[in-house]
Amino acid sequence: MSSSLLGPTAAVLVIGEEILSGKVDDENARYLVQELRELGVALRRIEVVPDDIGEIVEAVRTMSAGYDHVFTSGGVGPTHDDLTMQAISVAFESPLERRAELERLIRGSMAGDFQERDLRMADVPVAARLIYGEPPDSARWPVIAVNNVFILPGVPSIFRRKFASVRELFRAGPIHSQALYSRESEGTIAATLDAVVAEFPMVAIGSYPRLDAPEYKVKITLDGRDASAVESASVALRERLGAALVRG
Amino acid sequence: MSSSLLGPTAAVLVIGEEILSGKVDDENARYLVQELRELGVALRRIEVVPDDIGEIVEAVRTMSAGYDHVFTSGGVGPTHDDLTMQAISVAFESPLERRAELERLIRGSMAGDFQERDLRMADVPVAARLIYGEPPDSARWPVIAVNNVFILPGVPSIFRRKFASVRELFRAGPIHSQALYSRESEGTIAATLDAVVAEFPMVAIGSYPRLDAPEYKVKITLDGRDASAVESASVALRERLGAALVRG
Repeated sequence: MSSSLLGPTAAVLVIGEEILSGKVDDENARYLVQELRELGVALRRIEVVPDDIGEIVEAVRTMSAGYDHVFTSGGVGPTHDDLTMQAISVAFESPLERRAELERLIRGSMAGDFQERDLRMADVPVAARLIYGEPPDSARWPVIAVNNVFILPGVPSIFRRKFASVRELFRAGPIHSQALYSRESEGTIAATLDAVVAEFPMVAIGSYPRLDAPEYKVKITLDGRDASAVESASVALRERLGAALVRG
Repeated sequence: MSSSLLGPTAAVLVIGEEILSGKVDDENARYLVQELRELGVALRRIEVVPDDIGEIVEAVRTMSAGYDHVFTSGGVGPTHDDLTMQAISVAFESPLERRAELERLIRGSMAGDFQERDLRMADVPVAARLIYGEPPDSARWPVIAVNNVFILPGVPSIFRRKFASVRELFRAGPIHSQALYSRESEGTIAATLDAVVAEFPMVAIGSYPRLDAPEYKVKITLDGRDASAVESASVALRERLGAALVRG
């Protein structure tokens, strides 16, 4: 598929030593894949990096410059391996400062369990924006953003709740999708696919072989923001592949 | 966790437009996470990129220079969106050539279903090595490698079979692991963790909050190649955290 889906783009940076080492499965990138698709945002890259400040800084800079929205997952607690805020401070040359508003939230919410150390979570870049999202999460901890980078926690249940509280900020037009199924192999239909790809630059066309499906060998997908362009490309493929396609 | 696990490192590059767009879940990176862990190889990065030759070239170059082993997934069939071999050719400045040995395999295996177009899969960089792995896969299609980059197909069942056929090439010493469980919050135990992290640089120590476990609040993990260093760090944590830990 070519990168011909116009509209906002996004990248996801998972700060995930525990994922790289196989201790836990990634749930957050997987969740964002589906959410961003539903919002009409074209996800263009996912990276999983270890708890290494240099690698996080570099990834944040590259992603912030290359995509409309960047979402980070993980590395925002009070322990030695929580480096995300510091890395974002370095990446944007925006020093960390203790934000009184966050300190109040921490002292208020932790009560008896409070440790001085927890206040590290109130240290955010000077340039940080605090975004209080939609209910039920609006009264609680805000999503912290610096430029186009939205900083989310790694614990999946909180990640999902925080993202849900701000998701409408990112909504773009829908992406229109169709799928066709070929009984012929990829080699057989490749030339036809290539021609249609060239004729419809605004439609992203993908082909995915399946070995274990009895009814077809290749799934062909069409995606685009212009519903009529997707339909025209689909018609062109149906006309030219004809009997090779499973009837829909 | 710090990057203090010595030994071979690896990176995984998923050429996965279909994963970014939410059409299929990643299975291959997830599989390699577990395999590499079992082999004693420290996975340090996962990237998922679209079918864009420039992005693949850049990722291959960076990963090949930065890690001992690189595994790519996807983009190796006969269609317009199969760009991996071409990208690797560019990345290593090693022109594509039709390899007679691969052409024979294709003509032999596809028989009646054969299309001229399928021969694209016989075009590999001049510098490519063909690795015929262990049975049951040894008599079939080889794994193709250029320098330290091993090129694997995207279809999960084939990906697993191909990787399994060469996996013993990558075996290193085992990684020794322990886990402790704290009833106290991360803020409470963070200073102790930091001190033990500093005392045992050869042990990678991670802490992972859990909100939904009734018996503990934080899982503490210890990993290292030196079993006695892991045990010493574990003893140090058990002594200093004492009653905060769930008894094992």
